[in-house]
Amino acid sequence: MTAEIVSVGTELLLGQIVDRNAATLGVLFAECGVIHRHRQTVGDNLDRLVEALRFALSRSDLVVTIGGLGPTQDDLTRDGIAAALDDDLVLDEAVVTHLKEVFARRGLAWVESNTRQAMRPRSGSIIPNPNGTAPGLVCRKAGKIVIALPGPVNEFDPMLETSVRSLLEALGGGQVLLSRTLRIAGMGESLVEARLGDLMESQNPTVAPYAKTAEVHLRLTARAVDRIGAIALLDPVEEAIRGRLGDAIYGVDDETLEYAVVTALQKHRATAAVAESCTGGLLGGRLTAVPGSSEVFLGGVIAYANAVKERMLGVPRSILDTDGAVSERCAAAMATGAREAFNSDYALSITGIAGPDGGSDAKPVGLVYLGIATPTGVTVHEQKFRGRRETIRDRAAQYALLLLRRALLERDRRS
Amino acid sequence: MTAEIVSVGTELLLGQIVDRNAATLGVLFAECGVIHRHRQTVGDNLDRLVEALRFALSRSDLVVTIGGLGPTQDDLTRDGIAAALDDDLVLDEAVVTHLKEVFARRGLAWVESNTRQAMRPRSGSIIPNPNGTAPGLVCRKAGKIVIALPGPVNEFDPMLETSVRSLLEALGGGQVLLSRTLRIAGMGESLVEARLGDLMESQNPTVAPYAKTAEVHLRLTARAVDRIGAIALLDPVEEAIRGRLGDAIYGVDDETLEYAVVTALQKHRATAAVAESCTGGLLGGRLTAVPGSSEVFLGGVIAYANAVKERMLGVPRSILDTDGAVSERCAAAMATGAREAFNSDYALSITGIAGPDGGSDAKPVGLVYLGIATPTGVTVHEQKFRGRRETIRDRAAQYALLLLRRALLERDRRS
Repeated sequence: MTAEIVSVGTELLLGQIVDRNAATLGVLFAECGVIHRHRQTVGDNLDRLVEALRFALSRSDLVVTIGGLGPTQDDLTRDGIAAALDDDLVLDEAVVTHLKEVFARRGLAWVESNTRQAMRPRSGSIIPNPNGTAPGLVCRKAGKIVIALPGPVNEFDPMLETSVRSLLEALGGGQVLLSRTLRIAGMGESLVEARLGDLMESQNPTVAPYAKTAEVHLRLTARAVDRIGAIALLDPVEEAIRGRLGDAIYGVDDETLEYAVVTALQKHRATAAVAESCTGGLLGGRLTAVPGSSEVFLGGVIAYANAVKERMLGVPRSILDTDGAVSERCAAAMATGAREAFNSDYALSITGIAGPDGGSDAKPVGLVYLGIATPTGVTVHEQKFRGRRETIRDRAAQYALLLLRRALLERDRRS
Repeated sequence: MTAEIVSVGTELLLGQIVDRNAATLGVLFAECGVIHRHRQTVGDNLDRLVEALRFALSRSDLVVTIGGLGPTQDDLTRDGIAAALDDDLVLDEAVVTHLKEVFARRGLAWVESNTRQAMRPRSGSIIPNPNGTAPGLVCRKAGKIVIALPGPVNEFDPMLETSVRSLLEALGGGQVLLSRTLRIAGMGESLVEARLGDLMESQNPTVAPYAKTAEVHLRLTARAVDRIGAIALLDPVEEAIRGRLGDAIYGVDDETLEYAVVTALQKHRATAAVAESCTGGLLGGRLTAVPGSSEVFLGGVIAYANAVKERMLGVPRSILDTDGAVSERCAAAMATGAREAFNSDYALSITGIAGPDGGSDAKPVGLVYLGIATPTGVTVHEQKFRGRRETIRDRAAQYALLLLRRALLERDRRS
């Protein structure tokens, strides 16, 4: 089974959008043993879209389009597929009914142009879109298959998992490429590589490091006849890597650092709270991104103004006057204050200078104090993060999560 | 002058790399007035590369390849271009000399395979690569132009600026394409289109809508002989669009909704605070992402646990017991409580069910109550957001920002 992607959208050609959906789908092709040899990108132009689809159908068994399924006049993918398959467009009443329900539920006025989204080639069937109005399509005609998927990431990604993966697995067969990502925090890329040494030369699975913000991801990719065989290749190499990196590996595949932290808190039936200044809620936002975090995360104070640090976290005015808000003692007082205010087992605090303004020689942009209050006391870490405001804030939140994870690992060792 | 990109690399098809170089080049095409209609992506396979290049040359005046210029056996772009142009490969002695100097300077042993990087089609000339060993190429034959650029970002980006931009400007024929994005919140894509009507048919500038999470972006793109001329085309159309969409347009180009809100607060010398339950800090995180937000944003309470809503925001226990935490009255009490606790002019509250668990028939996943307390009172809005936990949280934070923006616009009208 050979597959080809046709990405649709003038914004892609103008470079206003980077085509990450095509990469995501490329990974899925590999995982399902579908051979991916060509990709085309065209703008919102019917003639060129039809030309691209016909060319793709002439050399590939499966063509997957991304984008152009919206309600507007420049959403032409449905029309293009019908033309390329010499098929006609029909109105799918079931979709119309569904769309009208969605609009009603959202309290939005029904606009007739939305019926465009209910059109499909006669040979096509609907792929449900749980997160948007534009459904996907699967068309089978003359031994060829065309799948159409919407462009918005929050619609595209879930549809891959709920519908497209099983479809492709059925079409694939033969060889399977399976990847597993080991997520590492608190250890730099070069040290990771040094520790792994010969393991980096492994051929099947291959082992490739990717540097992320304050993390390193190791991608193991195995080639085998089926999923079971690939897993049998991945497992021993993962075990060997864990033997060399130990606790630095906090998660696998999509397990984020916040997920690891929330899971560890749940395991210990421990609770946490946060006190954030320069991150302004990013840390709480990441912890609460984890489903079920409400069991262990009580809440936090976004203490942006000094008065808030004083009033809601009990930071002594004397510390703010003498050491200032960005100081070791303030971070300690914020963590202790949050732990008391929320009556939690653990509390994290972050206070620093995210920039671009507000820095000085004594306290440059990027200087951040991170505190952690535990049942056994409070400790503060000084960090100097590089980068733009956004990066400094991300690194600070990441580092705070790392502190809590370490405290919980320590608790594991003691118990 | 029509141009086409051919991205080369099996890693692109496998999705191991996202093709951001193609997007970067797409932007440059637009800036130089080069018309970009097609993009192809192929793996490291000579036959398919030659096929893609021949097809590109058959319909485009200019073809730019990205990647496949390295020293290894699977770097085939030079060979592919020569074949597609019916040209032969010759060794460029000047490049050999340069490469040997580079290796000597870096103290590296000369490897004969590097002479591959000194090969070029006879019709080609060299584009210097200041940051790598693989030079770029410009080939002119039979009225067609082929440019070859290396894939690594740290080599690709500088070469665009040092050499390729001037080349494209010359080829672009004194035409520039200038884009301007009008950012719209609180109005659906189909309604935006209905309001704009005939303006959507505008040819120069073109007007294209893009749906984002709880936003619509309208991209105006003008073609003119120079930047001034393009601006002269954009301005009246923007004015006409503003006449029909009014306040729904909150920003231009990179101005985010949080930026618009912070700016409006600064203009009114007004302060704001937040009380977040299901968003857990996302709203504060977005507001504090804006440099200078500390002037107007005092802070917030991440009130995840009910006890926190009660203790830190003064939500009456009776409301939590009778209506529950996800209720209109709780949202109102949270907003009022935050406004008092932080002594701010405005306070936003968010309480809802982000899922995936915790929903019921009476209170389904996606049900969110958003409150805003202002100097003139408190109002609460009930919303039912669709999508995954992440999307529901993003939409809730977005809607809260919209509420504050509307309140500040109202204040404009009164003053």
